[in-house]
Amino acid sequence: MIQSPYLLFLGDAPDALAAKVAQGIKDWRPEACLGQYRMEGCKANLGLEDLTLAEAAERGAKTLVIGVANRGGYISDSWKEVLKDAMDHGMDIASGLHNLLRNDEELSRRAQRTGMSLFDVRIPTVSFPIANGKKRTGKRCLAVGTDCSVGKMYTGLAMEKVMRERGMDADFRATGQTGILITGNGVPLDAVVADFMAGSIEYITPDNDPDHWDLIEGQGSLFHASYSGVTLALVHGGQPDALVLCHEPSRAHMRGLPDYKLPSLEDLRDTALHMARMVNPACQVVGISVNTSSMSEDDAVAYLKETEARMGLPTVDPFRHGADRLVDALAGV
Amino acid sequence: MIQSPYLLFLGDAPDALAAKVAQGIKDWRPEACLGQYRMEGCKANLGLEDLTLAEAAERGAKTLVIGVANRGGYISDSWKEVLKDAMDHGMDIASGLHNLLRNDEELSRRAQRTGMSLFDVRIPTVSFPIANGKKRTGKRCLAVGTDCSVGKMYTGLAMEKVMRERGMDADFRATGQTGILITGNGVPLDAVVADFMAGSIEYITPDNDPDHWDLIEGQGSLFHASYSGVTLALVHGGQPDALVLCHEPSRAHMRGLPDYKLPSLEDLRDTALHMARMVNPACQVVGISVNTSSMSEDDAVAYLKETEARMGLPTVDPFRHGADRLVDALAGV
Repeated sequence: MIQSPYLLFLGDAPDALAAKVAQGIKDWRPEACLGQYRMEGCKANLGLEDLTLAEAAERGAKTLVIGVANRGGYISDSWKEVLKDAMDHGMDIASGLHNLLRNDEELSRRAQRTGMSLFDVRIPTVSFPIANGKKRTGKRCLAVGTDCSVGKMYTGLAMEKVMRERGMDADFRATGQTGILITGNGVPLDAVVADFMAGSIEYITPDNDPDHWDLIEGQGSLFHASYSGVTLALVHGGQPDALVLCHEPSRAHMRGLPDYKLPSLEDLRDTALHMARMVNPACQVVGISVNTSSMSEDDAVAYLKETEARMGLPTVDPFRHGADRLVDALAGV
Repeated sequence: MIQSPYLLFLGDAPDALAAKVAQGIKDWRPEACLGQYRMEGCKANLGLEDLTLAEAAERGAKTLVIGVANRGGYISDSWKEVLKDAMDHGMDIASGLHNLLRNDEELSRRAQRTGMSLFDVRIPTVSFPIANGKKRTGKRCLAVGTDCSVGKMYTGLAMEKVMRERGMDADFRATGQTGILITGNGVPLDAVVADFMAGSIEYITPDNDPDHWDLIEGQGSLFHASYSGVTLALVHGGQPDALVLCHEPSRAHMRGLPDYKLPSLEDLRDTALHMARMVNPACQVVGISVNTSSMSEDDAVAYLKETEARMGLPTVDPFRHGADRLVDALAGV
């Protein structure tokens, strides 16, 4: 478990998008965020207080979280001095970057000397079992997408928030590095060895109380040539009772694949349901989550209304209008 | 590349099934097999000449191939003396077991001292790219199954044999350890990190001559809760032009999953074709391969005939009757 509170490190982020990991943590775990640390030239700003390392340490910061991604996802040399100083100030370091903190000699040495920990959330820390496909108690909801990066994590977190506000028993189950940094645990599914993918999802969504909901973070898309296998492992390891379809209407093609058009929501519904029912015949599609960030409010409302009428399913943009109607729809499962 | 000729090590196999890796090598690469090495209590017998290490070395054996799997797939202590002796006799060691030769201190030390090589074919030796989904030249055929271990590898190898006999340009592309030991290369797909599964299949089936066929070894099943993600990565990374459906009619349930019935051949056809056409709209199902080893000849013939009539596709047991009709069916693709 990564210890909070956090100091969010934005480094020299060239734009706001580069700091989207930090943004996610701030959006979903504001109580864990003491402040932000920005280097010269940083173009991202979360609206948190800018703190020096000394100030953050004084206020009790336990972990400096690298909330920024370089092109290529590596640890830039210019960051290293800050990371080492943070350890000198008594903070652990957490990172979801591709190249690992632990593989950097300077950082490793400093961690050893200061007794601080380096958390590389991109690397699985558990030896996962092979999935056994057995029915588990409790309920599970999985977000599946027409494409990668269409709002599946956001949808799950927004549903968890509403459910907890309503006093329901719900846990977001992270399957990617941002989700893990937000919740403090989970499985970095894209880094798991093929044979153990579905087993890792069974592992993080074990038997639970009958009324408990796991909100499993989706990954990739069943229609995405690069990552579909990861997605199917989520569907079969998760054994979802409920599916939420996620979509981003402005995409001209599948992310990173210029030759591939996105599937229709109907095709996603039918394909995901067919695959999910292999492991849970009672699985239902309960709603649709659309990322309408590219649209005006009027266009978004019209699009959601049209889609809802066409598909016969509650259709919302949880960022714009909240996830209440998606949570309402779980009552029927 | 693993050097032949081989001495096939059967160890203390408790039954013939435990030595199925060795059996596969002997069936498909008989010219590479000098003989077998059996320890006391071995219950498997390939019908090859039993050789001592000295005899095998004298006849030019280059590699001792571990053709037997323990329960759990580890290197048993009782084998180690033989493996070390084999290195003393100038043989490399090749293994597809889960625990690695290279991680065993005694074996590593002996390899270093003798200058021999340890091949762990279960571990990827390449840093694979993420799949790009681009159309490649040449043609590809993939075997997909109603379950694991229903004859997908056998089907591909049998088709390769017929095609080469006919002078066609064809290569079996191994995706599992037995296949790799048979052909000398390939990708151990179940050991590849999730994000790179589909990319590894693109890597081993690159652009080729228009008339060239890759016969891609299938893995798992789209319907198998433990391994379906691996299978979908094969379908989407392979971009097959042709699918062969594989089935074993005597199974009471999915392998290792007592609560799961096998899907029908119709369901496999529809599901596999739907998923394959996402990446190759021209993909066709060309035939059906049935493992009828549990049936009498009469029953097998009747079953194949009935299935062929029902499905409208050439249906054969390639072990009993050859793969000619499956190869004939590729002409229409």
